[in-house]
Amino acid sequence: MAKVVQNIIRADAEIIAALGQAGAATVHEAQGRSGCMSSSLRPIYTGAQIAGSAVTISAPPGDNWMIHVAIEQLRDGDILVLAPTSPCDMGYFGDLLATSAQARGCRGLVIDAGVRDVRDLTQMGFPVWSRAISVAGTVKETIGSVNVPIVCGGQAIAAGDVIVADDDGVVVVKRADAAAVNEKAQARLALEDAKRKRLADGELGLDIYDMRSRLAEKGLKYV
Amino acid sequence: MAKVVQNIIRADAEIIAALGQAGAATVHEAQGRSGCMSSSLRPIYTGAQIAGSAVTISAPPGDNWMIHVAIEQLRDGDILVLAPTSPCDMGYFGDLLATSAQARGCRGLVIDAGVRDVRDLTQMGFPVWSRAISVAGTVKETIGSVNVPIVCGGQAIAAGDVIVADDDGVVVVKRADAAAVNEKAQARLALEDAKRKRLADGELGLDIYDMRSRLAEKGLKYV
Amino acid sequence: MAKVVQNIIRADAEIIAALGQAGAATVHEAQGRSGCMSSSLRPIYTGAQIAGSAVTISAPPGDNWMIHVAIEQLRDGDILVLAPTSPCDMGYFGDLLATSAQARGCRGLVIDAGVRDVRDLTQMGFPVWSRAISVAGTVKETIGSVNVPIVCGGQAIAAGDVIVADDDGVVVVKRADAAAVNEKAQARLALEDAKRKRLADGELGLDIYDMRSRLAEKGLKYV
Amino acid sequence: MAKVVQNIIRADAEIIAALGQAGAATVHEAQGRSGCMSSSLRPIYTGAQIAGSAVTISAPPGDNWMIHVAIEQLRDGDILVLAPTSPCDMGYFGDLLATSAQARGCRGLVIDAGVRDVRDLTQMGFPVWSRAISVAGTVKETIGSVNVPIVCGGQAIAAGDVIVADDDGVVVVKRADAAAVNEKAQARLALEDAKRKRLADGELGLDIYDMRSRLAEKGLKYV
Amino acid sequence: MAKVVQNIIRADAEIIAALGQAGAATVHEAQGRSGCMSSSLRPIYTGAQIAGSAVTISAPPGDNWMIHVAIEQLRDGDILVLAPTSPCDMGYFGDLLATSAQARGCRGLVIDAGVRDVRDLTQMGFPVWSRAISVAGTVKETIGSVNVPIVCGGQAIAAGDVIVADDDGVVVVKRADAAAVNEKAQARLALEDAKRKRLADGELGLDIYDMRSRLAEKGLKYV
Amino acid sequence: MAKVVQNIIRADAEIIAALGQAGAATVHEAQGRSGCMSSSLRPIYTGAQIAGSAVTISAPPGDNWMIHVAIEQLRDGDILVLAPTSPCDMGYFGDLLATSAQARGCRGLVIDAGVRDVRDLTQMGFPVWSRAISVAGTVKETIGSVNVPIVCGGQAIAAGDVIVADDDGVVVVKRADAAAVNEKAQARLALEDAKRKRLADGELGLDIYDMRSRLAEKGLKYV
Repeated sequence: MAKVVQNIIRADAEIIAALGQAGAATVHEAQGRSGCMSSSLRPIYTGAQIAGSAVTISAPPGDNWMIHVAIEQLRDGDILVLAPTSPCDMGYFGDLLATSAQARGCRGLVIDAGVRDVRDLTQMGFPVWSRAISVAGTVKETIGSVNVPIVCGGQAIAAGDVIVADDDGVVVVKRADAAAVNEKAQARLALEDAKRKRLADGELGLDIYDMRSRLAEKGLKYV
Repeated sequence: MAKVVQNIIRADAEIIAALGQAGAATVHEAQGRSGCMSSSLRPIYTGAQIAGSAVTISAPPGDNWMIHVAIEQLRDGDILVLAPTSPCDMGYFGDLLATSAQARGCRGLVIDAGVRDVRDLTQMGFPVWSRAISVAGTVKETIGSVNVPIVCGGQAIAAGDVIVADDDGVVVVKRADAAAVNEKAQARLALEDAKRKRLADGELGLDIYDMRSRLAEKGLKYV
Repeated sequence: MAKVVQNIIRADAEIIAALGQAGAATVHEAQGRSGCMSSSLRPIYTGAQIAGSAVTISAPPGDNWMIHVAIEQLRDGDILVLAPTSPCDMGYFGDLLATSAQARGCRGLVIDAGVRDVRDLTQMGFPVWSRAISVAGTVKETIGSVNVPIVCGGQAIAAGDVIVADDDGVVVVKRADAAAVNEKAQARLALEDAKRKRLADGELGLDIYDMRSRLAEKGLKYV
Repeated sequence: MAKVVQNIIRADAEIIAALGQAGAATVHEAQGRSGCMSSSLRPIYTGAQIAGSAVTISAPPGDNWMIHVAIEQLRDGDILVLAPTSPCDMGYFGDLLATSAQARGCRGLVIDAGVRDVRDLTQMGFPVWSRAISVAGTVKETIGSVNVPIVCGGQAIAAGDVIVADDDGVVVVKRADAAAVNEKAQARLALEDAKRKRLADGELGLDIYDMRSRLAEKGLKYV
Repeated sequence: MAKVVQNIIRADAEIIAALGQAGAATVHEAQGRSGCMSSSLRPIYTGAQIAGSAVTISAPPGDNWMIHVAIEQLRDGDILVLAPTSPCDMGYFGDLLATSAQARGCRGLVIDAGVRDVRDLTQMGFPVWSRAISVAGTVKETIGSVNVPIVCGGQAIAAGDVIVADDDGVVVVKRADAAAVNEKAQARLALEDAKRKRLADGELGLDIYDMRSRLAEKGLKYV
Repeated sequence: MAKVVQNIIRADAEIIAALGQAGAATVHEAQGRSGCMSSSLRPIYTGAQIAGSAVTISAPPGDNWMIHVAIEQLRDGDILVLAPTSPCDMGYFGDLLATSAQARGCRGLVIDAGVRDVRDLTQMGFPVWSRAISVAGTVKETIGSVNVPIVCGGQAIAAGDVIVADDDGVVVVKRADAAAVNEKAQARLALEDAKRKRLADGELGLDIYDMRSRLAEKGLKYV
């Protein structure tokens, strides 16, 4: 049942770029507060903000063989997304694999497991969102699959879905929804700018969003 | 039962400032090794060291409506302290709320849940100590309370208690104890300076604190 | 049964230095993917990369008395390694103990518990790998042992074993294996440089390591 | 600061008994969904359902000395409630202490730490709700306090508060609220019986509680 | 985006029954070691072994309103499967909802959150696999969806997929794969009986499965 | 480096039996409160109380091949003790392996990972202490070692060490210490009987152990 799906469909590059600029939190709101991976996946360094198409990897615990297979499937602008078939925090990925992936245009890695060589990865500017940082390397004994549907960080991911990741975490946007979500994200950004100014001037959210009557209706008392 | 307590009593501003300069670890010792919140609450960036009066928020899981209500209650020098009524790591607080809180003199947020927009918060210099960083935003459907007693990070907090937070974590000082604790904290700081010099010169704690006989009495053997 | 073992045997200083330069991940591979402490032990700041001889401490939960005892046993180039006898995340160690340890040539601390004063420790350049950062200080009431075998971060450690620690985590090398492991580590480093260049040029690991036929044999299908 | 408060006020015995019969989940609802300890505290055996007055213990990590002190303060119908000052899963309590507590009328133990001798405790019919079951015994070296306010399982508890515990977990009712909460709990029980019959007959909650229009208003679509 | 999908397709009832008799571990093997939910989901009582068609619920944290909606969609032989949109261990489900679900032919509940009234549920013979047991009830303020794809216990689940659950845990079988997986499961069961007898007679797995030469080839040494 | 050590030395059978009757908590006290495995290792059913000689297994994550190898090394009265080389909660062991192990005189399994077929194991009377119960089976692709030193549940274990396990958890006694520890354990048991009677009669531990003056000396106040 192990297989490599070779030709995946990706979303439009401009839409991906726009989602990346909007950032993970805005995109999460724009698609109705959904698609957020577990907060246990953290960036290895701060400041990276990326978006790209998912090349998915389903790998056995403690075995990173399939990453080599997946790298051949990478196109410029892709993001590797790896889920182990059972929880595992070993360091599946380090500077050699990052060198190889970066050479093929890969923008980063999201991994529901561990990573290592984080100082090298930081110096290379290759961002990773991972559950753990671990010295422990893996073996290459058991096969898995590439570009099959996986569950990573508690979210179902298909190859070609758009991954948006920054300091706040990682959000997935279904490929088919990318254009519509981006439209809503851009609308939110415009609105937020206006609100930010009013709030900075000391106006209260209670008044801007007209919350006082609804709060009273729900039974809130001031004492 | 949801309510907003409007007029809370705060500790003396100079004492609060002195506690903030002493730092969380010293204050923790000064009050008899008590008042320390769970080490799961971590700062979103390093280097902030603050103290202020707690404006407390009891909020439902996944609902940040009460933060808007609490912001109206803020006075200059306050710290927001939020506990969800059930464990939740969603991102209750982001850059818009921080803008609003900062405009009203708020010094930071301590939250036994998640926060987002951490890059913006870092750039604004608005420090947060949280259990999680999460993309996932919340709703505004269910009410909670403001300035009622809460349990945050395993500590009971009343509105007006003094919160001291830095890179080591968060300590709460009961409002009524603030002056006495501060006196002990200042005394400790003075003592520590003297000890630090002796230790830096290579003198041993075993000798400075005269521990050798007590260790022998307890049965410690050198082999 | 509490005791202090005074004269421990250390590995050769040059070998320790070479292991430190190789780094934790390479050393872990070089000794057959073993010796890695739990990924829950994290550095308090990034960028430190050290190796040294373990001075071990077995301490009761919430009691740091034995650290004072252990500091007397330190020789230049040693690393303190502390395991509590029961899980505990309190802050056993802060800037005063670090001042004392550093004055005696100690290179750092690995602790399966908590640490505090992390801002001071960072400024002093005293690296710590810990399970937690915690404000909560400890008492000095119950004795433990120094330089006895302990289990720290899931690894068995004897006094004099070599500890290698960097941003990826912590690895222990049995004293008797240090020379052999170092030889393998240096060989790996040489090999990796050659591979890194080929991968950076876009060559695939699938080809460099000749994996295609073995993958087909295991049943991998391309679709 | 360590102290033993000797004369605590307890709630009315009949009200305590009635709360115990209502059970933890009903009591939790009756007081507005509050007072529930962490779900990490689990009963060591199933089937026990108790209520009683809290005799609180604040104990150092790994030290059970204060339990002996607390047992002297027990009156018939009390429940021991212990919180360590720092997280600790050691076995603070076993069959000897249970024998002593039971001889003084104690109904059970709630402990935010570990317990042991669980087979004996089960045979004695002495129920315990704990965070862990652990072989590891503790020492008697450091003092703590009895009948001071504590935080246990994430809830603030004062001596004399009513503890209600069963297979679902543990709820605390403030002593002053006991009568009012009990009234609401009894009202709920009566209502639930009627609803249970209608639901058992196949009637839907959607209809019994008249939810359909409110769901439509919130935007729920049937497809 | 909240919706209720009303007409879902279910697998063949006889195949579902056969998968239930095979049990979770055998089914997991039969489908190539996949489909296993997180081991954090545990049965509230031992001895239940069920299979049925998933009626899925996506619910906000701390809000069980959608369970009432889902119960209307139940057909005889179904299993409710609930995933909160953010981690939450509150007790979403108790004896009243179980009475209602059981009246409509529901065989059990799988929930990546908490449950309560476990004594009643046990007496009713209504099995639940949950992440937590919790006294804490929920509200009915925010809508979610029924019979949409969800991620529960780390597995992607579609409405109508087959759920197999017993004392070992929970496995999901894609509806389209049910027949093929069942065939393999039955074949495994036949094989296991023969092996069990040989192993009970003291024959070694090393010999039955002819492992010795392959172990030697991999480099295993006997010393 | 993978190897099988074939001839291990075991402790005296009568001493092992006596330690088993004393139980884990008493043995833990008798050896100075040491040797206790993590409280995360729990029995799959209650009531078993065993002791035996450890046959150790170091296994890769998700690979149970070495259990077959270890079973050949079992002698009557042995206990299998398995530690994965990296954290893993998959079900390494089920009813077929238990049948094989039991046929060779094995008394049980202690595993710092997962187990499955727990209903069958319970019916067979084959006790297991494990970190998890998991449906997920493993592969047989990578070799490990048998009867080498391992760390299991946070304790260092050598082949031939005595394992004592019951409802409270698991304790390891170094083979060389077995006789001395047993003597102390038996002495404790005798003492406990006397104390239990006095406590059951309502006498206080404060008086039996003469604690009042020592408490006063430490500063305990009655108010």
